[in-house]
Amino acid sequence: MNTIYFTPGPSHLFSTYQKHLMEAMNLQLGSIYHRSDAFKNIYRHTDEQLRILLDIPSTHAIFFASSATEIWEKIIFNCVDQYSFHLTNGAFSTKFYDVANALKKSPSQFAVDEGQGFNMNEIILPEETELICTTQNETSTGVQIPVEDLMMLKKKYPTKLLCTDLVSAAPYPAIDHTLMDCSFFSVQKAFGMPPGLGVWIANERCLDKANQLTHHGLNIGAHNTLESYFKNYETFETPSTPNVIAIYILGKIAEDMNNLGLANLRRELEVKADMIYDFAKHHKDFEPLVKVEAHRSKTVAVLHTDRPSAAIIAAVEQHHMRIGSGYGKDKASQIRIANFPATSIQQMEELLDVLNTL
Amino acid sequence: MNTIYFTPGPSHLFSTYQKHLMEAMNLQLGSIYHRSDAFKNIYRHTDEQLRILLDIPSTHAIFFASSATEIWEKIIFNCVDQYSFHLTNGAFSTKFYDVANALKKSPSQFAVDEGQGFNMNEIILPEETELICTTQNETSTGVQIPVEDLMMLKKKYPTKLLCTDLVSAAPYPAIDHTLMDCSFFSVQKAFGMPPGLGVWIANERCLDKANQLTHHGLNIGAHNTLESYFKNYETFETPSTPNVIAIYILGKIAEDMNNLGLANLRRELEVKADMIYDFAKHHKDFEPLVKVEAHRSKTVAVLHTDRPSAAIIAAVEQHHMRIGSGYGKDKASQIRIANFPATSIQQMEELLDVLNTL
Repeated sequence: MNTIYFTPGPSHLFSTYQKHLMEAMNLQLGSIYHRSDAFKNIYRHTDEQLRILLDIPSTHAIFFASSATEIWEKIIFNCVDQYSFHLTNGAFSTKFYDVANALKKSPSQFAVDEGQGFNMNEIILPEETELICTTQNETSTGVQIPVEDLMMLKKKYPTKLLCTDLVSAAPYPAIDHTLMDCSFFSVQKAFGMPPGLGVWIANERCLDKANQLTHHGLNIGAHNTLESYFKNYETFETPSTPNVIAIYILGKIAEDMNNLGLANLRRELEVKADMIYDFAKHHKDFEPLVKVEAHRSKTVAVLHTDRPSAAIIAAVEQHHMRIGSGYGKDKASQIRIANFPATSIQQMEELLDVLNTL
Repeated sequence: MNTIYFTPGPSHLFSTYQKHLMEAMNLQLGSIYHRSDAFKNIYRHTDEQLRILLDIPSTHAIFFASSATEIWEKIIFNCVDQYSFHLTNGAFSTKFYDVANALKKSPSQFAVDEGQGFNMNEIILPEETELICTTQNETSTGVQIPVEDLMMLKKKYPTKLLCTDLVSAAPYPAIDHTLMDCSFFSVQKAFGMPPGLGVWIANERCLDKANQLTHHGLNIGAHNTLESYFKNYETFETPSTPNVIAIYILGKIAEDMNNLGLANLRRELEVKADMIYDFAKHHKDFEPLVKVEAHRSKTVAVLHTDRPSAAIIAAVEQHHMRIGSGYGKDKASQIRIANFPATSIQQMEELLDVLNTL
C-alpha cells in the first residue's frame, strides 16, 4: 500500500508526475541532445509555463541548477563582492548566511529566535549592503515572511539587490517579481517532484552585478555563473548537460497547475493550512511553534508537542502516512507537516483524524 | 518507432533502465527523505556495486554531483592552490583547463592538436604542479589515453595529485585507482542513463589538499566541497538533497553490469569498436580522425568525412538511428559514433550497414 508523504521535502509526488514521466520515456527524452531543438523546445515550454504560474516578468530569466543549496552558493558568488545581509530565523536561512562566510565574504545578519518572524520596521541595513538575502519560508521552523513585508523591504531599499528563498513555498507566495531581483526553489517540495532540480529566477541587475565583479577580477566560480546562464538562455540552452527529464516534467506540472488555476490551488492550500492550525489549537498535545498568525507558513506547519515526536511519527506511519520530525535540535519535540498541492483536503482530513486519535 | 541513439551523450538508455525506474516509482523513492536509512541504503548499494565494477579500493570515496562540468569546478577548487597542469587535445580537456583559469588559478597545459594523443615521454611537469588533469577519453575527438600511459605518468610523478576525466569512458578503462587520486564520469554516457548525475571518485590525499587550502584561508567554494562530501559520506549521506532516483538506478545498472561481467562488456565494446574502425578503413568516404591506433577511443569513434555530416546524419535518421556530428568547428566534417554498452553488436552492424549503403 502506498504511503502518503506529508514530509517537508522530498514529499508526495504530484498526481500527474508519473504520467509525465512515462510520456518522457515514450518520447525518449533521456537520450536527446541538450543542444538540440527538442531540448530547446522543452526549456521554452517550461519557461513559459513557470512564467504564467509565478507571474514572472520578461525582465527575469529562469535557470536550472541541481538544488537550492547550489543556488545559495551561486547567488553569493555572482551577486556579492563583500556585503550580503541576511534575515535569519532558522536552519536554512542561517545556512545561506554560512555560505557567504564560507565564500570569504563579510556578511551580516539580523537574527531572531526560531519560530519568530521579522518586524520589517526594525531592520536597518548597513549602508554597504549589496544583497539582501531572505528566506520567504523557513522550512525548519515553519515561519513565513508575508510577501507584503518583502516588498516593503525593497521599497525601503530600492538600490539594493533583493533575493528570496522560495524553496518550500513556490508556487504559493504571490511574489511581485518586479520588486524581487532573484528568487529560487527546488522541485521536491510544493511542485511534487523527486529531488534533483533547482530553479533560479534572476533579473539583469543580478547579471550586471556579476559582470561588475568579474570586471574587478573577482573569482565568481566557473560552473553555472550568471554570465554562462544568461548567454545560454538566449537560445534556451544550459551551461552544461542538465536534468532534461526533470525540466520537462516541471513544465508539464506547471502547465497542469495553470490549468487547475493557481487561485484554486492557493485556496485549497489555505483551507488545509487552516485545518492543521485549527487542529493544533483544539488539541492539548500540539501547539503551533509560530505564535504570530501572519508569520505561520501556509506550506510547512510546525507543531510543538511534549510527546516524543518519534512515537507520533511511527503511529501515523501505521496508517500509511508519513509526517516530518522537527529539524535539528528540535527533532524530538516538534512535528512538521508539509501542506503541498500533491495532497488533497481529504487526505489532510485523514491525517488530522489519525493525529486526533493518538 | 523507437530511435537507437549512437550519440556520444546523452545516449541510448541501458536495457534495464526503465525497469529500475518503474521499481523506483513503486518504492516511492521520489518521496523518501535523503537523511533516512532508506536513502543511506541506496547510497551504500550504489557505492558497493560501483566499487566492484570499477575496482575502487577502500582508500577512495564515491560522491555524487549534478554533472562532470560541476566536478571540474570542484576539483580545481578543492585540489589546487595555484598550479594545475592539463593535458589538452580537444574541447573538453581544454574546458577543464579553462575552469582553472576562470577560478583565477595559474594552470599550464601540454597541448597537442585535435585527434592527437600524448607521448608521455615528452611531458615534463613544472615543478610547482599540484594536480595533473587528464582526460582519459576526449569526447570531442575520440582520442583516448591508454591506461598504462596514465599510470606511467603517476609513477614518474608520484607526489603530484593525478586526476582523470572518464566522462564518456567509464566503466570501460581498467584504471588502477591505487595510482589515480581522483576521477569522475557522468551517467548519460556509457552507463546509459538520462543526464542529471555526475560521479566523483576521490581519495583522502584530495581531502588533505582541500583541508590544507582551507587552512591557508583559500576560498574553495561552499557547495559540494570535499570536506562536506567526506563528512557526509561517513553515514552514506550527501551534502544536499541529491538526485535520489538516479543514484538508485546507477547502483542497479552497475549491479546488472557486474552480473553480465565487466570482462564480457569490455569484450563486446572492443568487438564493436573494431567493427566501426574496420568499416572506416574500407569505406572511401570515412576515415578515423585518430591515426594512432592505441589512441583511438573504444567508446567514442570519430570519423572524418568529406561529405557533409548533416546529410549523413539525416540519412541514418531515416532508419531510426541517430549518430552525432563532429564537435564545434568540426561539426560538418566529422561524425561521432558512441559505442556504449546500451547498444548491441547487432545494432552496430545495422548502423554500419546503413552507413555502407549511403
